[in-house]
Amino acid sequence: MIQGIGASAGVAIGKAFVLPNWEWDLPETGIDAVDLANEFERLYEGIRTSKNEIEFIKNEFRDMVGEEESSIFDAHLAILDDPVFMDEIQGVIERQYKAAEVAVKEAIDHFVTMFDLLDDEYMKERAMDIKDVGNRLLKHLLGAPEITLPADTQPYILVAKELSPSQLAHLNPSHVLGIVTMVGGKTSHSAIMARALGIPLVAGLENKLKDPIQTGDLLVIDGDTGALYLNPDDALVEEYVRIRERQLAKKEQLELLAAVEAITKDGCELHLAANISSAKEVESALKYGANGVGLFRTEFLYMDRSTFPSEEEQFEVYRQVAQQVGELGAVIRTLDIGGDKQLDYFALPDEDNPVLGYRAIRISLDRQELFQTQLTAILRASAFGRVKIMYPMISSVDEIRQANEVLHRAMADLDARGIAYDKDIPVGIMIEIPAAVIIADLLAEECDFFSIGTNDLVQYVLAVDRMNEQIAHMYHPFHPAILRMLRTTVEAAHRAGIPVSVCGEMAGDERSVPIWLELGVDHLSMSIQSLLKLKHRILNTTASDAKRTAQTCYQLKSSVEIERLLTEFAEPACGNNESVNQPRGEKGSNAS
Amino acid sequence: MIQGIGASAGVAIGKAFVLPNWEWDLPETGIDAVDLANEFERLYEGIRTSKNEIEFIKNEFRDMVGEEESSIFDAHLAILDDPVFMDEIQGVIERQYKAAEVAVKEAIDHFVTMFDLLDDEYMKERAMDIKDVGNRLLKHLLGAPEITLPADTQPYILVAKELSPSQLAHLNPSHVLGIVTMVGGKTSHSAIMARALGIPLVAGLENKLKDPIQTGDLLVIDGDTGALYLNPDDALVEEYVRIRERQLAKKEQLELLAAVEAITKDGCELHLAANISSAKEVESALKYGANGVGLFRTEFLYMDRSTFPSEEEQFEVYRQVAQQVGELGAVIRTLDIGGDKQLDYFALPDEDNPVLGYRAIRISLDRQELFQTQLTAILRASAFGRVKIMYPMISSVDEIRQANEVLHRAMADLDARGIAYDKDIPVGIMIEIPAAVIIADLLAEECDFFSIGTNDLVQYVLAVDRMNEQIAHMYHPFHPAILRMLRTTVEAAHRAGIPVSVCGEMAGDERSVPIWLELGVDHLSMSIQSLLKLKHRILNTTASDAKRTAQTCYQLKSSVEIERLLTEFAEPACGNNESVNQPRGEKGSNAS
Repeated sequence: MIQGIGASAGVAIGKAFVLPNWEWDLPETGIDAVDLANEFERLYEGIRTSKNEIEFIKNEFRDMVGEEESSIFDAHLAILDDPVFMDEIQGVIERQYKAAEVAVKEAIDHFVTMFDLLDDEYMKERAMDIKDVGNRLLKHLLGAPEITLPADTQPYILVAKELSPSQLAHLNPSHVLGIVTMVGGKTSHSAIMARALGIPLVAGLENKLKDPIQTGDLLVIDGDTGALYLNPDDALVEEYVRIRERQLAKKEQLELLAAVEAITKDGCELHLAANISSAKEVESALKYGANGVGLFRTEFLYMDRSTFPSEEEQFEVYRQVAQQVGELGAVIRTLDIGGDKQLDYFALPDEDNPVLGYRAIRISLDRQELFQTQLTAILRASAFGRVKIMYPMISSVDEIRQANEVLHRAMADLDARGIAYDKDIPVGIMIEIPAAVIIADLLAEECDFFSIGTNDLVQYVLAVDRMNEQIAHMYHPFHPAILRMLRTTVEAAHRAGIPVSVCGEMAGDERSVPIWLELGVDHLSMSIQSLLKLKHRILNTTASDAKRTAQTCYQLKSSVEIERLLTEFAEPACGNNESVNQPRGEKGSNAS
Repeated sequence: MIQGIGASAGVAIGKAFVLPNWEWDLPETGIDAVDLANEFERLYEGIRTSKNEIEFIKNEFRDMVGEEESSIFDAHLAILDDPVFMDEIQGVIERQYKAAEVAVKEAIDHFVTMFDLLDDEYMKERAMDIKDVGNRLLKHLLGAPEITLPADTQPYILVAKELSPSQLAHLNPSHVLGIVTMVGGKTSHSAIMARALGIPLVAGLENKLKDPIQTGDLLVIDGDTGALYLNPDDALVEEYVRIRERQLAKKEQLELLAAVEAITKDGCELHLAANISSAKEVESALKYGANGVGLFRTEFLYMDRSTFPSEEEQFEVYRQVAQQVGELGAVIRTLDIGGDKQLDYFALPDEDNPVLGYRAIRISLDRQELFQTQLTAILRASAFGRVKIMYPMISSVDEIRQANEVLHRAMADLDARGIAYDKDIPVGIMIEIPAAVIIADLLAEECDFFSIGTNDLVQYVLAVDRMNEQIAHMYHPFHPAILRMLRTTVEAAHRAGIPVSVCGEMAGDERSVPIWLELGVDHLSMSIQSLLKLKHRILNTTASDAKRTAQTCYQLKSSVEIERLLTEFAEPACGNNESVNQPRGEKGSNAS
């Protein structure tokens, strides 16, 4: 067994296909001064072709896995527009009279070396992006064929030193059982894409293999544990065949739960809704039994384009969501860019600490014309289904009042235009900044509902950037301070008579169920993938036991103790003999 | 009147001296291949000489204004060791056969253009640093004389396009009344240095002057408001002479307060201590009436050198502080690097959000050998005066316990070595992470005192990086959530019977006095410059009125309302007829 990094879950068993590296045959002679113009023309032509090709791959990939993942290719397009990169290439052609392909190769090597020197995960990803784009450009300049994957063989496990996003985008999931890469980890673009495609991936095997894997070798990989077996014996293969079958069976059983209400053994119901980023996800959210949409992240409407979306364009998307969810309802969160989410056409300042920076409602209140356009589009959609508005990153009473002023202007505008909308549209806020928890009583008087964004809240309360691997072990959703703040928020809301939902990753974490039951949280909103697993957990929980466990958690002083107790509660015995299929009530269409 | 940016406070009146720009006469001919080795030798020699010169300037400047400001030159030394910068220079020599000085100039221009392109304050400062270092290197390569400032004339107001830190370091404060620069702002290195030197600075005048200022022009500048008057009339000059005299008189009057206790009109005492960063500041802290040292920032012991300081080196510094403060006591905070404080010899990871990253106690608990060395040195100093230990960035009970384990190892080690120390040394923690406030009751059981670090606390609670100019207006120490968290912290401490001090900038803010009186905070620790102003405010305050005002603040819902009320309380009338010299009691030497 060779231990790698499990970067995309699942077991794969099959023959290896080893992807050859991109290698280039560069011209050795320089160019003449008279050829300069010609060389530049070749370069620009290569850039144009590469851009078209990247656009094409992006669209193809978006249709396959969604907006968020395909935005990786925007970074690639941006590189081809980057003046520093282009200056470097042009400089080599112009000053050293080298051919365009040689100049491109030198520029790639220069930047890749520079970024690699910085020894930083983000920069290494940038280096990978530049390599990927540069190779595409070289391919066009040299007229070389794309390295293609076999499509006419048995399905295989793909083995590569590294896989660029554009190579991954060409994968046919029905031919690729699993992926093995020498470099990379859990956070690489390739890992994100493999997870989106549902292909198991074991990464980080460099220097761990005595002999390189050969095409035709038999492989067993486990993307959960990171284990790789090279030419294993029959017994091991059989064991993994059984594991894979169990995984598939469990998945199928879970899918039967979609139509069942999320009610504990002793009759406590939790309402489960879905977090989505595009209108087309509503269908699968409903298919997996979501009680409506608890969080529609509108920022993806703004990405992946070159200008701000118009009122009409936004309205069209919000209307689709509203019509599909109907009475189940959808909470539409206003634009939450900034931090790690950037737009190509809206230059946000470079910030030393973007997470503590110019983001979300701060931008909306600063750029009120954009905000009003979005609110107008949401209001219009409210005539087509139950829609609620939610403001992100609220830290004060004043911000809610200022945002509502813009909302009222949008309403007055629609009144003047004679367009229908829900005049009683509920307006809620995200509780994700520590200050918002502390003044939750004041904020509850100003709005119609709370939604706790645990991801940001935990990182601010603990001062731990959850993306920072150096301190990732300190990111503790089950910190006693977090539990207390959840209680403060829920109590303030309920005293003011408004509901609270939770929409961060904690909401979809099976271990949190006792906390939600004890606090009496009204809704949980989570990724579509988490819905059935969480419902299964709730169906197998006794609320009275769960509440007692939660009360014990509130007595403990450390995150580790709390997490241990909740984990034991969620996984009570070694042999898991809980029934997956334990309906407590049929789901009515008007449940919310 | 021309409106610039007030970047260093104070009024200056005098004749302009306009600093010529650095201009270089570069060789136009290239070099031969046989000269390559020679050219590289010249380059290395230039780098060596530049480094020695920068070291010299740094030491000179440190003696003048202190460790923190002089660390600017470490950035300069780092540039001369930077492989990317050096590769660029060597590449031009090697590939294009250009002379070393031409290569240096091209590399400077290349990087300055690149950094400027990024349109980011931090990067612009880096560009300025590279220009400064590059010009020094060019000076040596060309054998050009340093541009010096006149020392034999009347004192003058220095006018320059921009001033590099190394130009500023050569200033003789007794010759320079004030400074005017075309570029730059409040946060530039030059502004920081001008403030350290106490020289008024008006910056950011580019494109605001119809005609350039000439040497000999009469100037009046106001570093508080950013106003500049070019050849003003006598009436205006006289007015500013009076303003300057009033500023000086007020400063002198304040200095009389050093020996007076900080007691309100109705007899409530607040203990004022000093924040320091080096042993030599203890003297001026005591001179300005500090009741001991409330915060000794030890990180500056670790900066400005090439290896970690040894136990002996640290002990020597801590012993000096302990002996000087005697019974008044000093709180020594353990290493608080990371975030915006970096060490050259300890490579911290590049982080997307360093403020939420690998910092302070997180590093100490990860690198326990370094931590134990520091704790041992502090313990040894406790035999020479009242010393307390304080851990920064605490967010959990576990962290205190882990830190105390290292402390106990250090104590056992000293016991074994037979070295004396205070076996009952008080151990406290910084309350600066939101989680610490929320679980203050649990933390209070584990330590001997709290010190509230309002700077970090406010930025985490509001999710606002206070260094980020785009959202600086949202950094509100008087946010209702902050006031509530201050109360939570003080009440938890007092219920557990331990004292609380405040050591962030709020402690030295005159407007906060009512809050401290109402909460019953035990100590305030602040910069030496704030001590007398704050004492003056306390002497002119009636505690019963102040407490009523604070109670009203706790009823208000917005930062703006609270700030307004506290500002009105601190500046009750237009005509300020408070007595500056209003002693309530003579200061005893054993007060704490």
